[in-house]
Amino acid sequence: MKFRIDHRDLGSAARAGELNTDHGVIQTPVFMPVGTVGSVKGISQNELKEQIGAKIILGNSYHLYLRPGTEILNRAGGLHKFMSWNLPILTDSGGYQVFSLSNNRKITEKGYAFRSHIDGSKHIFTPESVVDIQRIIGSNIIMALDECTPYPCEYEYAKNSMELTHRWLERGIIHFEASRPIYGHSQSFFPIVQGSVYTDLRKQSAEMISSFNQEGNAIGGLSVGEPEEQMYEMCEVVTQILPQDKPRYLMGVGTPANILESIALGVDMFDCVMPTRNGRNGMLFTSNGIINIKNEKWKDDFSPIDETETSGVGKQYSKAYLRHLINAKEMLGAQIASIHNLSFYMWLMNEARDKIANNTFADWKNKMLPKLKTRL
Amino acid sequence: MKFRIDHRDLGSAARAGELNTDHGVIQTPVFMPVGTVGSVKGISQNELKEQIGAKIILGNSYHLYLRPGTEILNRAGGLHKFMSWNLPILTDSGGYQVFSLSNNRKITEKGYAFRSHIDGSKHIFTPESVVDIQRIIGSNIIMALDECTPYPCEYEYAKNSMELTHRWLERGIIHFEASRPIYGHSQSFFPIVQGSVYTDLRKQSAEMISSFNQEGNAIGGLSVGEPEEQMYEMCEVVTQILPQDKPRYLMGVGTPANILESIALGVDMFDCVMPTRNGRNGMLFTSNGIINIKNEKWKDDFSPIDETETSGVGKQYSKAYLRHLINAKEMLGAQIASIHNLSFYMWLMNEARDKIANNTFADWKNKMLPKLKTRL
Repeated sequence: MKFRIDHRDLGSAARAGELNTDHGVIQTPVFMPVGTVGSVKGISQNELKEQIGAKIILGNSYHLYLRPGTEILNRAGGLHKFMSWNLPILTDSGGYQVFSLSNNRKITEKGYAFRSHIDGSKHIFTPESVVDIQRIIGSNIIMALDECTPYPCEYEYAKNSMELTHRWLERGIIHFEASRPIYGHSQSFFPIVQGSVYTDLRKQSAEMISSFNQEGNAIGGLSVGEPEEQMYEMCEVVTQILPQDKPRYLMGVGTPANILESIALGVDMFDCVMPTRNGRNGMLFTSNGIINIKNEKWKDDFSPIDETETSGVGKQYSKAYLRHLINAKEMLGAQIASIHNLSFYMWLMNEARDKIANNTFADWKNKMLPKLKTRL
Repeated sequence: MKFRIDHRDLGSAARAGELNTDHGVIQTPVFMPVGTVGSVKGISQNELKEQIGAKIILGNSYHLYLRPGTEILNRAGGLHKFMSWNLPILTDSGGYQVFSLSNNRKITEKGYAFRSHIDGSKHIFTPESVVDIQRIIGSNIIMALDECTPYPCEYEYAKNSMELTHRWLERGIIHFEASRPIYGHSQSFFPIVQGSVYTDLRKQSAEMISSFNQEGNAIGGLSVGEPEEQMYEMCEVVTQILPQDKPRYLMGVGTPANILESIALGVDMFDCVMPTRNGRNGMLFTSNGIINIKNEKWKDDFSPIDETETSGVGKQYSKAYLRHLINAKEMLGAQIASIHNLSFYMWLMNEARDKIANNTFADWKNKMLPKLKTRL
């Protein structure tokens, strides 16, 4: 994998670059739609590629490990082939889902012991096994196993947890380097900075993971309930330490505003379920603000969902029609809203990239932020 | 609306024709995907047009009347505009849904009194009001209000019900002729033959509705639980009486085999929820037979859903992937299965049309029937 920075914004730490993988080129900053269990909910692979313009998607190792399972994925020739998706895929390590989905889990030096949220069966994730799982999935970018600390989190817990994440990282890298890709294309390994909301821990973690000199680095444990300002503060501490010439991935973030602020701090990669999950519930992101399409006021608004060119479906269907579909619980409502929101996120990233190239990013961001937060 | 018969099969009563509406030309025999409440479940308008090749869809007046309601539809400029669908639409009269969905209904000489299955509110459908509703919807083909008798049905009940349907028909036609289209395009009115499984009643009804000389005629009250042979028998009795130069629409039918048998009896138009509803439950129609994709045997079958050219998605995605999606209750599973099944129905109609033109329909049908019924 190769990463090249094409432009640096003069008014902020924002960068525009290009990430080159064996499955294609990704221009950064980039948003990765979340394809939890081998599908971005409600959206076909064609729509993802052609209508939305996604260049990379994210898969969740926890979900894929449980269903369809590594045996099927291996026999399919990896996730790309299994789901008919020939562009890049990044997978998380599964740790976050163990934490959030399994109500029967234990964390030890060895790794996670947990029960499946589907059938209660017992499983173990170790720093080594999640590399094996992601080798079988065949993702272009493999994430290290970490513990994502909750918020709020005592300093002592955060410190011990970070140190455990670091020890896991060492084991993960050793295992990653001792193993090989299965399907012929190369795979990169991203470590994850932890340290909760404590500046000294975040610094220590960023320095530690930078020292491994991997092809990219991630920031985890943010957007878990802490105030936004604290998230940006931690993000800034970390991006000042992480290598300039490697992509930085802020995991699980966030709202359009969160993303623009984080781009300004030097983050290159993002993922979040928000555009699809909130879309399914009738929340639409537009360049003029947020629409709750269930609201009575849209019932006879026959204007397009979004007048701007941010998405094809936004121009094709009216607010009144989408409101009707969402209220009648028609699948197409969730589909249209998801396609629109993801298209909007893609549009936002393309705009950001253009503004970085023109050195107008900081101004544009400050003009966009109040609009993005407006409730229409 | 103009109807022209291009070919008549020498070995059966099958016909291939062309129905010309203000929203486009429909080649017959035709299958109409069911867009219950302003959307064919799980399928976008683009997919319907471009991937599936649908030339006309069906809307349910009962559902549309309750949601979004006639006021919204009227202000939208009709259903075509409301849902961004510029090809023909046929709507049923709502009688069947009152019968099947409302558990609080009463049938009188005047019409149906019923309570909404959504909020329990009280409503009345009369032969006149359902014409008004369909004028507002703006469907290209308007259906008469009828009573769809259940199966089994006593002769006396069937006779009285048929006579009521005939009286309603007279009122409906008077009202239809006294009213005008709202949106500039012309609308046709189809009466419906009833008479349950009684040959004399079916004959009487077919003669009665033929006498009104409308632009097309429908056969209702079949495929409601009676043995298939009885359905074909009634269908044959009726098609021998209905005008040759008008399209015949067999309502709510059916399996691929039902459709081929009915085409052989001279039916031109069909609709059914089966391809979408069964698709959502993992049942796939293919040219080699029926697949229950939930079956364990498909879990590591990485071959395409359907090797033939009947659908794009059938070639794009594997059986193992679709099984995974359906089992994981991912929306995309329902979407792929629905697109595939509808595409298969369209393929079957196109094939039937070609075979009629070549005078090989009867042979082809007899060769297809055992395949269509095979469980793979």
